[in-house]
Amino acid sequence: MKEDVVVLTGKTLTIEEVVRVARHNAKVEFHPEAQATCEKSREFVYRLAESNIPVYGFTTGVGANKDKKVEAAYYNEYNVSLVRSHCVAVGPEATLAEVRAMMVIRLNTLLLGNTGMSPAIAVMYRDMLNKEVTPVVPERGSIGEADIACLSHIALTMIGEGQAYYKGEKMAASAALAKAGLEPVMLGPKDGLALVSSNALAAGQGSLVLYDIAKLVELADIIYSFSLEAFKGNVSPLHEEVNRIRPFKGQNESAAHVRALLTGSYLWIPGIADALQDPLSFRCACHIHGAVRDALRYVEDLMKIQLNSSDDNPCVLIEQNAILSCGNFEPVSWAIGFEMLGIALSHLSKAACFRTIKLSSEYFSGLPRFLSPDPDHVIAFGTIQKPFTALDAEIRHLANPVSMDFYAVAGNIEDHANNTPYVVQKTRKIIDNLYYILGIEAMHAAQACDLRQEPEFKLGVAGQVVYRKIREAVPFLAKDRNLTIDIANAYELLKSGVIQQELSHLSGV
Amino acid sequence: MKEDVVVLTGKTLTIEEVVRVARHNAKVEFHPEAQATCEKSREFVYRLAESNIPVYGFTTGVGANKDKKVEAAYYNEYNVSLVRSHCVAVGPEATLAEVRAMMVIRLNTLLLGNTGMSPAIAVMYRDMLNKEVTPVVPERGSIGEADIACLSHIALTMIGEGQAYYKGEKMAASAALAKAGLEPVMLGPKDGLALVSSNALAAGQGSLVLYDIAKLVELADIIYSFSLEAFKGNVSPLHEEVNRIRPFKGQNESAAHVRALLTGSYLWIPGIADALQDPLSFRCACHIHGAVRDALRYVEDLMKIQLNSSDDNPCVLIEQNAILSCGNFEPVSWAIGFEMLGIALSHLSKAACFRTIKLSSEYFSGLPRFLSPDPDHVIAFGTIQKPFTALDAEIRHLANPVSMDFYAVAGNIEDHANNTPYVVQKTRKIIDNLYYILGIEAMHAAQACDLRQEPEFKLGVAGQVVYRKIREAVPFLAKDRNLTIDIANAYELLKSGVIQQELSHLSGV
Amino acid sequence: MKEDVVVLTGKTLTIEEVVRVARHNAKVEFHPEAQATCEKSREFVYRLAESNIPVYGFTTGVGANKDKKVEAAYYNEYNVSLVRSHCVAVGPEATLAEVRAMMVIRLNTLLLGNTGMSPAIAVMYRDMLNKEVTPVVPERGSIGEADIACLSHIALTMIGEGQAYYKGEKMAASAALAKAGLEPVMLGPKDGLALVSSNALAAGQGSLVLYDIAKLVELADIIYSFSLEAFKGNVSPLHEEVNRIRPFKGQNESAAHVRALLTGSYLWIPGIADALQDPLSFRCACHIHGAVRDALRYVEDLMKIQLNSSDDNPCVLIEQNAILSCGNFEPVSWAIGFEMLGIALSHLSKAACFRTIKLSSEYFSGLPRFLSPDPDHVIAFGTIQKPFTALDAEIRHLANPVSMDFYAVAGNIEDHANNTPYVVQKTRKIIDNLYYILGIEAMHAAQACDLRQEPEFKLGVAGQVVYRKIREAVPFLAKDRNLTIDIANAYELLKSGVIQQELSHLSGV
Amino acid sequence: MKEDVVVLTGKTLTIEEVVRVARHNAKVEFHPEAQATCEKSREFVYRLAESNIPVYGFTTGVGANKDKKVEAAYYNEYNVSLVRSHCVAVGPEATLAEVRAMMVIRLNTLLLGNTGMSPAIAVMYRDMLNKEVTPVVPERGSIGEADIACLSHIALTMIGEGQAYYKGEKMAASAALAKAGLEPVMLGPKDGLALVSSNALAAGQGSLVLYDIAKLVELADIIYSFSLEAFKGNVSPLHEEVNRIRPFKGQNESAAHVRALLTGSYLWIPGIADALQDPLSFRCACHIHGAVRDALRYVEDLMKIQLNSSDDNPCVLIEQNAILSCGNFEPVSWAIGFEMLGIALSHLSKAACFRTIKLSSEYFSGLPRFLSPDPDHVIAFGTIQKPFTALDAEIRHLANPVSMDFYAVAGNIEDHANNTPYVVQKTRKIIDNLYYILGIEAMHAAQACDLRQEPEFKLGVAGQVVYRKIREAVPFLAKDRNLTIDIANAYELLKSGVIQQELSHLSGV
Repeated sequence: MKEDVVVLTGKTLTIEEVVRVARHNAKVEFHPEAQATCEKSREFVYRLAESNIPVYGFTTGVGANKDKKVEAAYYNEYNVSLVRSHCVAVGPEATLAEVRAMMVIRLNTLLLGNTGMSPAIAVMYRDMLNKEVTPVVPERGSIGEADIACLSHIALTMIGEGQAYYKGEKMAASAALAKAGLEPVMLGPKDGLALVSSNALAAGQGSLVLYDIAKLVELADIIYSFSLEAFKGNVSPLHEEVNRIRPFKGQNESAAHVRALLTGSYLWIPGIADALQDPLSFRCACHIHGAVRDALRYVEDLMKIQLNSSDDNPCVLIEQNAILSCGNFEPVSWAIGFEMLGIALSHLSKAACFRTIKLSSEYFSGLPRFLSPDPDHVIAFGTIQKPFTALDAEIRHLANPVSMDFYAVAGNIEDHANNTPYVVQKTRKIIDNLYYILGIEAMHAAQACDLRQEPEFKLGVAGQVVYRKIREAVPFLAKDRNLTIDIANAYELLKSGVIQQELSHLSGV
Repeated sequence: MKEDVVVLTGKTLTIEEVVRVARHNAKVEFHPEAQATCEKSREFVYRLAESNIPVYGFTTGVGANKDKKVEAAYYNEYNVSLVRSHCVAVGPEATLAEVRAMMVIRLNTLLLGNTGMSPAIAVMYRDMLNKEVTPVVPERGSIGEADIACLSHIALTMIGEGQAYYKGEKMAASAALAKAGLEPVMLGPKDGLALVSSNALAAGQGSLVLYDIAKLVELADIIYSFSLEAFKGNVSPLHEEVNRIRPFKGQNESAAHVRALLTGSYLWIPGIADALQDPLSFRCACHIHGAVRDALRYVEDLMKIQLNSSDDNPCVLIEQNAILSCGNFEPVSWAIGFEMLGIALSHLSKAACFRTIKLSSEYFSGLPRFLSPDPDHVIAFGTIQKPFTALDAEIRHLANPVSMDFYAVAGNIEDHANNTPYVVQKTRKIIDNLYYILGIEAMHAAQACDLRQEPEFKLGVAGQVVYRKIREAVPFLAKDRNLTIDIANAYELLKSGVIQQELSHLSGV
Repeated sequence: MKEDVVVLTGKTLTIEEVVRVARHNAKVEFHPEAQATCEKSREFVYRLAESNIPVYGFTTGVGANKDKKVEAAYYNEYNVSLVRSHCVAVGPEATLAEVRAMMVIRLNTLLLGNTGMSPAIAVMYRDMLNKEVTPVVPERGSIGEADIACLSHIALTMIGEGQAYYKGEKMAASAALAKAGLEPVMLGPKDGLALVSSNALAAGQGSLVLYDIAKLVELADIIYSFSLEAFKGNVSPLHEEVNRIRPFKGQNESAAHVRALLTGSYLWIPGIADALQDPLSFRCACHIHGAVRDALRYVEDLMKIQLNSSDDNPCVLIEQNAILSCGNFEPVSWAIGFEMLGIALSHLSKAACFRTIKLSSEYFSGLPRFLSPDPDHVIAFGTIQKPFTALDAEIRHLANPVSMDFYAVAGNIEDHANNTPYVVQKTRKIIDNLYYILGIEAMHAAQACDLRQEPEFKLGVAGQVVYRKIREAVPFLAKDRNLTIDIANAYELLKSGVIQQELSHLSGV
Repeated sequence: MKEDVVVLTGKTLTIEEVVRVARHNAKVEFHPEAQATCEKSREFVYRLAESNIPVYGFTTGVGANKDKKVEAAYYNEYNVSLVRSHCVAVGPEATLAEVRAMMVIRLNTLLLGNTGMSPAIAVMYRDMLNKEVTPVVPERGSIGEADIACLSHIALTMIGEGQAYYKGEKMAASAALAKAGLEPVMLGPKDGLALVSSNALAAGQGSLVLYDIAKLVELADIIYSFSLEAFKGNVSPLHEEVNRIRPFKGQNESAAHVRALLTGSYLWIPGIADALQDPLSFRCACHIHGAVRDALRYVEDLMKIQLNSSDDNPCVLIEQNAILSCGNFEPVSWAIGFEMLGIALSHLSKAACFRTIKLSSEYFSGLPRFLSPDPDHVIAFGTIQKPFTALDAEIRHLANPVSMDFYAVAGNIEDHANNTPYVVQKTRKIIDNLYYILGIEAMHAAQACDLRQEPEFKLGVAGQVVYRKIREAVPFLAKDRNLTIDIANAYELLKSGVIQQELSHLSGV
């Protein structure tokens, strides 16, 4: 198999590439032009170091210490001190994939030449990624301006301190470097700040979260289409023209997707649906999933800018022959995008829960109450509404905003913040809960399919796949059993991504 | 003066046109093609009425009554009953401008031909708008699926019941119609539902809110630039190239705007700023305002679709020879956009508050504490931090989401909602608070300017305007006085929009 | 009729007395001992003024100006300046009753002798109350530490500035005083601070809110008991012993109350209920109302301390011969109690909404869908679930906490706050919404009673009263009509308090 | 050492006893009278089983299946099915201590005789506790009405299914029972429901949380008193009389505690404090901690009722010869108490954060900026404000309420909920974050003590202990180092409880 390589230019990194590097260990290389820019930028910094112009975090201290001068003789010592003193984070650890995402993102943006970092450090990022040296990074501690409290731990590994993983095994950072055949780096002027002052923690975790939401909304379409078949729902809201006259992009994408998923389904038989209008959780599903899609596209577009632009302060401007103080580490625009995404997912969650309730309601589905195969002796899904309601309440809670909850720190200089890492982390938690909720919906839909007696009943192309997959993980419920196990199995199935994978040919409709 | 006319086509209505009709009494006309479409759509409905196909809200009841049949003989009676029974709203009244916004929006979308409404009703909307008959519409009662509880009151006026304003005077609707020389309309099949089932309440209030936020973010840029001058802040974060390398659109727009506003300011004198780096509330202001701009553009784009597409259920599809049930009244995509806007404005608010604090801090501004002209005898702005903090806390509270707080109603059929009207209304409240907060910031900045002694001190083109306007409303604080009055005056000034108006030539940079 | 007089001692003021003074214009008098304490305290202050000990807000400035010295010669000027400069509030105006509540509360606590205020000012409070001079007090601007931004307006009236009401008519404060035959007061040392630095705004509005919640929970019991009769619900959860074994105090109070209200009801006929178990909104109503009662008692107990203890800073300790700085203006304990009350009321709201839904569900109530007297021609309560759902969502939103949303102000000295006024004000809004929600529940229950056919049907002692009152305000719904009017009428009825009044003999069971 | 035994009576269980059983493996025994009651109750149930009266969950199904009849012949089978079908929970696992807390609480309340459970099951609870068989209980899945989705897993172990721990080792439940010498139980009538339908999950986790908050508020007092010494703060707000005149109970307890902790401190030297008034985070600390104490007492009192009263439905009333349906599983009163506690802890958190900021502010503490021992070369605590701010934001987020976020489930019958388990779990998370925040405060205070030069400087009795403990865990910061490690060590120290333990003689003042 040919090795997967991502070539970094500073300008073209995609979320999908981040995922390949982070989760699938794709190798990274520099585009030659990017490398040249990086070197040019460093030369400029050295020229500046010889001049007498005060530059934040370079010839001066950082934060409220910005009025303190750093003498050239102390560059190394100062930068090592800076790295150590900025290690102020709190567990749990970010996953290895998340740390790799942070690294490739930070590496990519420094290639733009606005950082002025030592090229040797860029090489170190690359080598650590390619040789699988992954620093231990506690994920809490940053308020997002920028993620200095956490990213410092990556720098710590680079200077051979702290802890790191080598090919998945945890050890002293120095040992990990040694096993990988790498030497610790020496820090020159501005390197400390350049290493720690970036949004790469939030952008790294956030990129993975965005990727997962994209997959999740596909999954939600799929499970919804399967539920619609199990429910014998009305397809009129899916009609192409019905959606064309309401041209919200996300809604139309989900509707097109669901139509494709339902190819061959008995639901297209004219007049088959019992009800003229289904409950809104069915009827408006594409509008709701579409709201997630719209919000997702908004945040993805902002993230693409984040992944390929400078969040450095101060920023090196070679053409302008300047190194300027700025606020480019402020990610509030996409931070609040994530807050919106959480709200969008809370809507998606509630719709899934209400559909699941309807599937097990004899009044709506025409099937036995709680989808019991034997209502006199089998309780079936009589209690399972509680766990998904509980998980949905948790999502509702997580969807509360937090980005604006801060106060002035660092001698009152840092009087704005965004809590972006935590904003991203709570969104990650919402996704996890949704695998359970959609998994339980799928369990209901499969059971409903098994109980349907209509001679016309026939699943479409997607329904057949989903049914088969669910039934491999969770057998038909003939008598009462420990459903905690079924729920866990459905969760694992959905989280694995295999369903979307098998139906991926229908997702780009 | 030539009369202002907005020609409605169903496809081209802008937020700005809504504002002209709503607030400035622009007249409305139909595009001939749109009128023809509308009539064609009605003919189709009549043909259908003669057939035997059950159609929701037309030959059937609505909501959970969708299984009840409506006989042709009862169309009129049924539709009047429907209008009356759907009047289930709660005060306070929407403003006249808001009701006019609702009317022009509903009128525009029914011209698309997906409604099948009687053309006489379209004429009635137009005439009521042009002759200034404005129904009394209590603004609470809708959960957004769609705004039937409130829009019904517009229909009520049309049939000559309830209350309305005629040229600003409140009276019985029948009297208002009579004074305007209008006859009540007769309702035919589907008319009741067509009149009430639309998102026009939320879209109407929402359009005005979006317009106001666009003006507010301009204002925020202006007040920030004025504060920066008063603070003697560092302009390096505003540098064109500094922002170009971080190409978030909103940030770059605000930065360009602020640079233009600061034309001629002493701040551009090299080395004038005392500090290498200002507090983040100054340094990141364009990033924060930019986040509002980004979020605003997102919601505006969705709103444009809303204003020019069908939210009817069922929808009439002439080409397809069909009238189909659907969920197109679901505005959740832009509802959550408004939730994000609230969060964005909470960030903007906090930045304004923190800047105001810095202006009156001797440590940061180098000016007397609390900007007192005589610190030993005048308390000056020693207490005023409390009201803006209180108003900011209120904004923080209002910024909490609410769109997902619903449960199933209408016989469990309506198991999704979005609370869009309330979401919009809380955003409207946030804007109002911000006029106070920015007004207090402006009071501080003007006072700081008056206390500045630097010989180089010179306001730029915008600062000169703002200073003059503020000082017309709020005199220099030489001795302690009742500041409640000053705050109210600054609020009125900012709310009036005259500052943006005078500086509008600099806003589109 | 004998005049109602409340004698103030500083130690015995009750919420009920506050209501009498605030809303019913009861007169206030000083207990002689309290007056003596007050005078003794003032003498002490004068002695201190002659010494050289620095005392916050007395011989020093306030807030961050606490390091500024105030010379004895400037006491008057300084205190007038302090009052003026502390007028930094924002509308809307507090109601006259609320301002009177603030005044009687501040007056009472200063009688404790820990304030050291001029006795002439105490007399002024008394006279303004008794002669109905009521200052205009904008209700926003305080973050609760203490309510200086707003209470300053009461002081302003006392020195003859600003605006005030005289017997309900708004005019210049100087005119109001003149009409009442009162002279403006002269301010001596510490008077400015003593006038403004108190929690009396939040305590005043809060006392009225607590009183209203106590009445509201009675009302909720009453409406619930009426609904239970309309629903033909099961009384087993109300059984005395059933509640005795779960001895939560509030639950048992509500259960006892409801049992008393149901005296004589057909529900006590053994076996009359169709269902073994009703929905939780019925079955757990007393537990939910009880949770409000428990929370209410908690806050009332704290408020009683607030009403009768010193919130002065610095506080005068005559026995200790000291005047000490402190933090006794910090009301966070009861502020968070109000936050809990909001949450409790959100539960009460949801239970009322769900009961109302059940009343109009044919499946649960056994009555025609949406309580239509003629389901084929009358829509009846088919749409009314939307307004109460919308109002409930608003309550959910208001129930979010806000007390901890603050940052450091006043030169970073005031780095804690509680936003108690806004916390109280949002609770007040929740109560108002609940009159609508319970009103709509009552409309449903009355309609259900009218539609009940059971020969055994017979309302209990309370149900008969409620039915009669509702039907006086809202007639039987025989055909569809504008329900906005009915809702408004039911709201007015419930808000008037007449129902609780007529049934008050059953409330203390 | 004598074995620790808790004798259960059904009426006297304390939170402290729950902790002893849960965390310290105290043994449990039945009071003879309680055992007799339990047996009498069971006999009554059997008599009833022979009659023909329908009883919920006994001779009928549960939830929406309450209209299904259960024949006597199927009691065993039905109850086993019920247990299995109610296993619908989601991980993570509750801790072993938490599961033990659930077990002792459920066991205690069934001794009241209102459950009618088989006495053999009571014995099983006891034996499992005493022999350390601890079921695996996933902690999510309950919406609190009652905790059936989770408690079912305890029942599952009792019938020998699922997984359990035996003396801390995880294995098949059947194996764990075998190792402990226990036989699986047989389920008789009502046993299934009796095992699962209880609030014991939330009450168990909640009791431990309440215990931990009680310890936490002691710790907060201690760290605050230590900070006050490090800050050289003013003790006047602690004065006994100053607090006596503001008789909020919690405030006075904290003030007395802090006075005791400060015994012997240099702070009592008259005039030692530089400032007349400290920032509110210092000055109001006892008021804030007192608010936590007040709220805690409120919830503890309610919890004591929960621990010693029946949450059974239906409840067996032997004296009344009845078994009645009810809503006694509704814990909403204390659920919202926990929501208030979360808000209270958010206040406590912010005060700790602001004190920590002040300690490292040269302006306030008079010590070097960021407590650097060498400001020109050592950054010291320049960045550490970010992690505690981030953790505080998380607490702010967790403090949002969630108890009212539910919708109707189980065929619309269960139309109220409270999410109490999640409410408790988020409070547990708040506590954990606070160990970090207070740990960082303690690190600052210790460093400040080391930097203090005043000759009078002398720590009081508590300060000496805290200083020593902190310095054992975290050495003086002489040069910059990885502070992530220090933070973790301070956290572990505070979480261990040893500080409160050593100072426990001063806590009950």
